[in-house]
Amino acid sequence: MSITARKLGLKKLFIPYWRKALAEAIGTFILVFAGTGAVMVNNISQGAITHLGISFVFGAVVAALIYSLGHISGAHLNPAVTLALWQGGFFPKKQILPYIFSQLLGATIASALLLLSLGKVANLGATLPLNNNWLQSLILEFMLTFILMFVILGAAVDKRANSSFAGLAIGLTVGVEAAFMGPITGASMNPARSFSPALIGGIWQHHWVYWVAPILGAQFAVFVYKNIAYSDLQR
Amino acid sequence: MSITARKLGLKKLFIPYWRKALAEAIGTFILVFAGTGAVMVNNISQGAITHLGISFVFGAVVAALIYSLGHISGAHLNPAVTLALWQGGFFPKKQILPYIFSQLLGATIASALLLLSLGKVANLGATLPLNNNWLQSLILEFMLTFILMFVILGAAVDKRANSSFAGLAIGLTVGVEAAFMGPITGASMNPARSFSPALIGGIWQHHWVYWVAPILGAQFAVFVYKNIAYSDLQR
Amino acid sequence: MSITARKLGLKKLFIPYWRKALAEAIGTFILVFAGTGAVMVNNISQGAITHLGISFVFGAVVAALIYSLGHISGAHLNPAVTLALWQGGFFPKKQILPYIFSQLLGATIASALLLLSLGKVANLGATLPLNNNWLQSLILEFMLTFILMFVILGAAVDKRANSSFAGLAIGLTVGVEAAFMGPITGASMNPARSFSPALIGGIWQHHWVYWVAPILGAQFAVFVYKNIAYSDLQR
Amino acid sequence: MSITARKLGLKKLFIPYWRKALAEAIGTFILVFAGTGAVMVNNISQGAITHLGISFVFGAVVAALIYSLGHISGAHLNPAVTLALWQGGFFPKKQILPYIFSQLLGATIASALLLLSLGKVANLGATLPLNNNWLQSLILEFMLTFILMFVILGAAVDKRANSSFAGLAIGLTVGVEAAFMGPITGASMNPARSFSPALIGGIWQHHWVYWVAPILGAQFAVFVYKNIAYSDLQR
Repeated sequence: MSITARKLGLKKLFIPYWRKALAEAIGTFILVFAGTGAVMVNNISQGAITHLGISFVFGAVVAALIYSLGHISGAHLNPAVTLALWQGGFFPKKQILPYIFSQLLGATIASALLLLSLGKVANLGATLPLNNNWLQSLILEFMLTFILMFVILGAAVDKRANSSFAGLAIGLTVGVEAAFMGPITGASMNPARSFSPALIGGIWQHHWVYWVAPILGAQFAVFVYKNIAYSDLQR
Repeated sequence: MSITARKLGLKKLFIPYWRKALAEAIGTFILVFAGTGAVMVNNISQGAITHLGISFVFGAVVAALIYSLGHISGAHLNPAVTLALWQGGFFPKKQILPYIFSQLLGATIASALLLLSLGKVANLGATLPLNNNWLQSLILEFMLTFILMFVILGAAVDKRANSSFAGLAIGLTVGVEAAFMGPITGASMNPARSFSPALIGGIWQHHWVYWVAPILGAQFAVFVYKNIAYSDLQR
Repeated sequence: MSITARKLGLKKLFIPYWRKALAEAIGTFILVFAGTGAVMVNNISQGAITHLGISFVFGAVVAALIYSLGHISGAHLNPAVTLALWQGGFFPKKQILPYIFSQLLGATIASALLLLSLGKVANLGATLPLNNNWLQSLILEFMLTFILMFVILGAAVDKRANSSFAGLAIGLTVGVEAAFMGPITGASMNPARSFSPALIGGIWQHHWVYWVAPILGAQFAVFVYKNIAYSDLQR
Repeated sequence: MSITARKLGLKKLFIPYWRKALAEAIGTFILVFAGTGAVMVNNISQGAITHLGISFVFGAVVAALIYSLGHISGAHLNPAVTLALWQGGFFPKKQILPYIFSQLLGATIASALLLLSLGKVANLGATLPLNNNWLQSLILEFMLTFILMFVILGAAVDKRANSSFAGLAIGLTVGVEAAFMGPITGASMNPARSFSPALIGGIWQHHWVYWVAPILGAQFAVFVYKNIAYSDLQR
């Protein structure tokens, strides 16, 4: 058996569910610790990190986590992604709840640790629609998550893509979207990333926007991608 | 049959034209939504994104789209690129019009959505020659698109290159050119990217520059690349 | 024998210990010369490099060094990483001292050269807890190095990962952590990087924090990673 | 014959010398056009590009050119690199002069085009030692080019490295060095990059520094790398 074939064989070995869920918890912890931590430290340091720096942190940490956890749990780190992958037939139904619970738990521990270590600054990095314009943020978060999920499907799920570059492509997409829409919507694209600062900081204004828009946007991406690219080629 | 060989075989399966064209429309939509969106949100946020941030958005979104759509449509996202690939013998004549129409359509929907969601700010990200110096921009846009197309030919089309890295190389090139020439010409290199803000915003000054220069620059790159590297090795 | 197999075979050939140790010395020299040099030149140039630029320097030089030295010494460049790899069973005990000595020596030569060529500015890039809050920095450096080592284990050590991307993933992680926690703790994650400016500049306040926290954080990452991912699949 | 093997076979086919030299001319033209163009446009736009943006342009364009031209000419783009590769036994003596002449010619055309299209601003991007301290710049340029060439040898020349990532590693190194030492020495590391603004702009102060330091630094890297890593494994 060739080295490559053996490697592929090993990759398919059983990884128990609880290990996958724990990996999602740790990954989402790191994502929220770094990303919302950057928002908070930017405030503490009077803007030393800059908006572009915060966007870099969100994008780069997602890329690093995909390369570190992709082979364990798939590195969803995002309930909207988990739900969309299930809807597309790429993820088993019975793992949805453990995954989403783990993502929310990991994010919440990150927000709690940030509160303890840095104090209550910058609303713990909570996402809020600019000028309370929830309709604008609803539409734009829908589009942002549509784009993110479209890239995930094209670069990571589609069999024809070289999925080694998925971490790079997805990380760049998160970084791009944080950079260009952060000032308007907060560029969440991820209910877990918005949930934990809301919970720990007690800031629930327009919070539903950051559940409804990402989930629907990601679902729409599955619908569109399947129509332009679907065939029996997909995994 | 080895795994690699089967994968290559599957890649060559027929993807209907309308799916490829739709992929170009969606890809160019995402490119213009993110790129010109960054110009507009930079204005709304009093410069939070910065010129370097806008350049990052343009470059990184191109890289992400190449990794997501390359296996469907080739991810041209640019009429100048489509025309140059045809001239070089790498793209069939009968697909030119569907591709360019789709690129312009996708871009136009993006500009319309940006107008609706953000209002008419920053000329919707339209490209204009600095100080109305159209000759300067004509020459420089020619050079910029020459460089972009040269990199596309070397990194993506040439059989000898490791085309897995084409998305990275092309994205970096777009980012570099946006960064260093953006303040002078707008660093369009792409008639579709310049067309849609002009159409939706009604700003047609010197618009022809952003069709003539990119198209001729890309054609010149094909001529030059074929002379230094052409052989029967090319795809 | 296939080309790939022969290449893998060659990779396993004996590289004498002193060569590996010398590679660690040169690599850590380059890391400290570039990284703390960026801190110093940022001071000399009145902030031209910016905090984000310093973070880029630290992250990118680590990525470049992993691609240049990974095949020689593994490119640890960090006593905390060397100790954690040993604890995990991925590094032989008898090479620990030569590695750590080389890392400290390379870093020290870099700090000395920076002092000679640039003068005593910016404390030679020494790391100090913000507002002398050593407990905050102790906890946060522990978390930062936990995250770094977790990514190293997932992206470079775990057999199931595509380790070609380890340099990218680890470099991005260093860049992210420098960007988001630099203003609070200095984002050292590396006793060698903190030791040499302390030694050459004579600044020993709270220096122990930058040994204890990274070493324990990295050890904790080994414990956690083994529990979520350990199996007989690891190298 | 497997696909991989055939590809490798094709790569070794004869590419005439003049084509390689022309590729070096075009590549160095693009490098100088983008890099020193960024310095000039930063001046014209009152600092819109920023020092970090200029560093990004230099690093990213080098990466893009390695992925586009590496398979044609090796993408040296730098007389110091060409001479060091010859000294190391990786480049034939009779191609040295055509390569260096092409590099200088391409750079000179770029500087002339920048003068014509942008006017005489920012000394055409010429490199000058800070405060006329030529000794400081001599030492630091020696170190910078030592580091650059060390990364080239480790990531691109050494057979054991995955040379697909060489463009990324070398581009990151150029970007890092431009970022952290640009304000002191100009971070040239490349006689061709320094020669053309000097020639076209008539600024010859301390110009010899930018020939002597890079050439000696690169030679020293070959000496060091061979001692830590040399064996009959190298190409």
